[in-house]
Amino acid sequence: MSYRFFLEAKPSAELITLEGDQAHHAVQVMRFKIGDAIVLFDGSGVEYHAVIDQIAKKRLELRILDTVSLERSLDTKMTLAVAMPKGDRQKFLIEKLVELGVECLVPLKTTRSVANVNEKVLQRLKKQVVEACKQCGRNRLMEITEEKSLSQFSEDLGSGCQKFVADPYRGMPVSQWLNRSCSSTESRQIAVAIGPEGGFDELENELAHALGIQPLHLGPAILRVETAALAVAAIFGIGNEIE
Amino acid sequence: MSYRFFLEAKPSAELITLEGDQAHHAVQVMRFKIGDAIVLFDGSGVEYHAVIDQIAKKRLELRILDTVSLERSLDTKMTLAVAMPKGDRQKFLIEKLVELGVECLVPLKTTRSVANVNEKVLQRLKKQVVEACKQCGRNRLMEITEEKSLSQFSEDLGSGCQKFVADPYRGMPVSQWLNRSCSSTESRQIAVAIGPEGGFDELENELAHALGIQPLHLGPAILRVETAALAVAAIFGIGNEIE
Repeated sequence: MSYRFFLEAKPSAELITLEGDQAHHAVQVMRFKIGDAIVLFDGSGVEYHAVIDQIAKKRLELRILDTVSLERSLDTKMTLAVAMPKGDRQKFLIEKLVELGVECLVPLKTTRSVANVNEKVLQRLKKQVVEACKQCGRNRLMEITEEKSLSQFSEDLGSGCQKFVADPYRGMPVSQWLNRSCSSTESRQIAVAIGPEGGFDELENELAHALGIQPLHLGPAILRVETAALAVAAIFGIGNEIE
Repeated sequence: MSYRFFLEAKPSAELITLEGDQAHHAVQVMRFKIGDAIVLFDGSGVEYHAVIDQIAKKRLELRILDTVSLERSLDTKMTLAVAMPKGDRQKFLIEKLVELGVECLVPLKTTRSVANVNEKVLQRLKKQVVEACKQCGRNRLMEITEEKSLSQFSEDLGSGCQKFVADPYRGMPVSQWLNRSCSSTESRQIAVAIGPEGGFDELENELAHALGIQPLHLGPAILRVETAALAVAAIFGIGNEIE
């Protein structure tokens, strides 16, 4: 895959100038030369195939040769609401959910949540989304919303969306759901809530039930938060592509 | 889930003594008391339910009350051969493959491999397996073999095992394989080889083909090594349980 640059906005002309960290990295670290091909993306689902026209110390001038509509997205539109872990586990989670094609991540407020996703954290997570998209070729950014409660999360979903909550002790096995969906014309929009370490409390479980969110069972082991999230993403995403 | 201790060997009596790091952690950090219940496992697929009988500063005496055969393993027996990543990504990979129920991990020697798994590294990885098993409740350890080449890996598999190689550009989509296996009585033993960053080289791809290893496609994005491995584990494992 070609080297990929992220543009904050749609390019307005065929000739564009890149400055700042990305340009510096391209010139000083990657040692690109005039005439080298690179790919630009702006997160909207298209990529721009460009060549380098001019190079200065911290600036690149590029000529866009072609615009290609190419999302690299999956057939199932996935929203995951996750009681976010901290530190490296949080960073890893973001990277993996981007790679695995999750459309929208909702940081979930729960009684036992350990990480608070304020505006500053949100900005950091969004930068990590861009980095992961550069790496994996995804051309539409994963959205990250502000923190939501379980009921806010549920209310904000469209009516065609199937709602699940990961449950270590009960619920329909995820394999059963997949087998049903193989041969059906059911909605390809799913949303899954994943609770914190120690699980949702009793009241939250009752609320999920009242909101019509179905419990989903993810096998016999007790999965960490980020493991449950990425397993759900892999199974409903790559594991559920229309052939 | 109760606090879990790992035993290096099968307990030979009803009363056993724990010393060393685990006992120290239990007494000084977890502050267990006489009469507290804990779970012991020795990696063989059973767990022992015990209570604390005596506590010293760095020693615990435990009485085993019950022995339960409980593997928390999956219906599909998975062997993954992975061109190992380095550093945190390697550590994360081990933890996730244990949680996701992989039975055996083969560090894969390839032309573009970046990490060398020598005896010292292998011992470190095996400790990480134990830690992950403590956390997720798994009672049979994930095996890690010595490094193997693609052909050694293939030769050492049983004849009933289906062999795949993850391929970013071609092959049968993993979803198609799952749909076929839903309704079939095909083998529940699979083995998947996952190449390094930059992929297998041309010769390795030809070798895989000659060895009868089928290419398997994991969606439109270019996945990192550890992402491909954990996606395969989630889809073939939890995503493929017999209902």
